[in-house]
Amino acid sequence: MTTPLRLDIQATDGAARTGVVHTARGWYQVPAFMPVGTRGTVKALDAADLEGLGAEVMLANTYHLMLRPGADVVADLGGLHRFMGWDGHTLTDSGGFQVHSLSPEVDDDGVSFTSVYDGSAARLTPESAVEIQGLIGADIQMVLDVCATLPAEPEVLRLAVERTAAWASRARDRHRHLELRPEGQALFGIVQGGTNPILRTESARRTVELDFDGYGIGGLSVGEPRPAMLAALAATVPELPVDRPRYLMGVGDPVGLIEAVALGVDQFDCVAPTRMARHGSILTRGGKLNLRNASFARDDGPLDPECTCSTCTRWSRGYLRHLLSVHEPTAWRLLSIHNLRFTLDLMDAAGQAIRMGRLDQLRHEVSERWAT
Amino acid sequence: MTTPLRLDIQATDGAARTGVVHTARGWYQVPAFMPVGTRGTVKALDAADLEGLGAEVMLANTYHLMLRPGADVVADLGGLHRFMGWDGHTLTDSGGFQVHSLSPEVDDDGVSFTSVYDGSAARLTPESAVEIQGLIGADIQMVLDVCATLPAEPEVLRLAVERTAAWASRARDRHRHLELRPEGQALFGIVQGGTNPILRTESARRTVELDFDGYGIGGLSVGEPRPAMLAALAATVPELPVDRPRYLMGVGDPVGLIEAVALGVDQFDCVAPTRMARHGSILTRGGKLNLRNASFARDDGPLDPECTCSTCTRWSRGYLRHLLSVHEPTAWRLLSIHNLRFTLDLMDAAGQAIRMGRLDQLRHEVSERWAT
Repeated sequence: MTTPLRLDIQATDGAARTGVVHTARGWYQVPAFMPVGTRGTVKALDAADLEGLGAEVMLANTYHLMLRPGADVVADLGGLHRFMGWDGHTLTDSGGFQVHSLSPEVDDDGVSFTSVYDGSAARLTPESAVEIQGLIGADIQMVLDVCATLPAEPEVLRLAVERTAAWASRARDRHRHLELRPEGQALFGIVQGGTNPILRTESARRTVELDFDGYGIGGLSVGEPRPAMLAALAATVPELPVDRPRYLMGVGDPVGLIEAVALGVDQFDCVAPTRMARHGSILTRGGKLNLRNASFARDDGPLDPECTCSTCTRWSRGYLRHLLSVHEPTAWRLLSIHNLRFTLDLMDAAGQAIRMGRLDQLRHEVSERWAT
Repeated sequence: MTTPLRLDIQATDGAARTGVVHTARGWYQVPAFMPVGTRGTVKALDAADLEGLGAEVMLANTYHLMLRPGADVVADLGGLHRFMGWDGHTLTDSGGFQVHSLSPEVDDDGVSFTSVYDGSAARLTPESAVEIQGLIGADIQMVLDVCATLPAEPEVLRLAVERTAAWASRARDRHRHLELRPEGQALFGIVQGGTNPILRTESARRTVELDFDGYGIGGLSVGEPRPAMLAALAATVPELPVDRPRYLMGVGDPVGLIEAVALGVDQFDCVAPTRMARHGSILTRGGKLNLRNASFARDDGPLDPECTCSTCTRWSRGYLRHLLSVHEPTAWRLLSIHNLRFTLDLMDAAGQAIRMGRLDQLRHEVSERWAT
């Protein structure tokens, strides 16, 4: 069976690469940042906004969609793309990370948890996660994994790696024989192992043995120091096949994005750009700007003078600050559009830097600007 | 001094008329529905959305803008149009109605109230309301009036009419000599008188004597029966000059709009279409639809099959119901766009019916469809 995904690398710079991922739907460019549409929409935005931003892949959360409105409802409404009126690419996570954050009961067979919506009991197994994501119908689905809370005892990390490997194998089998899913729907494995490079390497090898269409790198960006995250990445990425996309889950800050791209990662998702926007934390080429600061009350300039997003070309800091301070939902949307554009632009800049062999210069600039 | 407004009537049908209001900014068509942008934006929408809807006039609330961000801040940020990035027409109310709803202390000179934002003491006089609206800089400002709670004792209505008349005269004087306002900014008087036709007629005559650029009809749609509102309108409109726009404040339901147009009213504002949208109450050519109803959960059709708005042409009832039920702000925006388009389309239909001499037929259809 051939993989429904093919990564055409167009340029490399060290371990970093840029190119195009061909899919059953079409193609998307990497490095790529995927905005997060938790419940079938990026919060306060719609699919037309994503088009305007030039986003090519959107992530939706299986955990939320399986509970509300239900995977069968999404399927009845034509699957995720038709449901949300979005012709671009979609990826669903497996629900593993959300479940993990709810202190669920994990056993060898799967995971039991309670719904945040009504407290009812729910359960996911590697097989049911594949089936549910088949119904939801994204272009890419993710295996159910076990994500250890960091820092973790060695035996906890070991168990997470073992269960993740066993579950990946079961997911792979179920996905191969699943009929109720879109033709060409891809399945990504997930590498675990915490911040232990040896475990990361082992988990990567065992995941690659199962031959997935792409590889998620999970369990990072959960509070560990950045050097530990980068060391874990460095132990993982060389084990992954060159021709498959590599997806670092949950990273979306400028330094994290660029450093991971430099290590050979292709795609990312994170709620941070939109969540920060809703709290007035604005990403600009001049660094982070706290729009709640009173100094912006009478500022007639754009959020970022170099930005070409629909927000920066029309509305002032003063107006946006006003809308935010009186809790107008319009502010959440306009500021989210800007922060997403900033993040998408950074990925474009990374691709261009790779093509020009200047990624190190971009890394230097980003790290200077965003040093905390 | 010539009025900055000129109404060119293009067609009439009975007392109803359709045409174009020429202003210092340009022109807008009547009958017109004005979406309400309380705090400088229609809730959950932005100025580009209003353009997409074809709205020609937007109303903003002086009461809210004077408290947050402050009229001087709006002025510093270039005035209301530049502030909100909107080149269409704007109108500010005087703050009278909001203040009225807060049980303020009214004396002959003005009105004292407390801020909903921080409880601080605030005051409006006929003169300061003109000055504040001059700073905000809408195309049309409204005089500060006294709005009696209905039903009201005769002496309460009488006092409201007397104060409204005295304040209108003071506002007219202040506006004529005010330098800090946009050139050509218009000022509308407001007719009061509750549901008493004799008082309405008197208030209209006394207001017209002051020669305003247009005439608001206030103090209605506050809970009185519809026949009482229409009787008050019928006693008011014939007293108003033919060549000035007539604005019925706070009406936005289909029957109320069409009946008032039939009596010769030109423009309207109301928060109902957007507020209803945020609660899932959808206006369609088939009548009102409660999107929260479970029967829509798997409905793949548009809110209104005959609607051409950006929501109906892209998203299904099932998707929109899902977004609404998980409290996604996206739902508020997409549903507001639809309800506004419905209301704006109804005004267009009224104009067309007047041109074709078929307004009675439209009245009949609307009253049949929307009978409660």
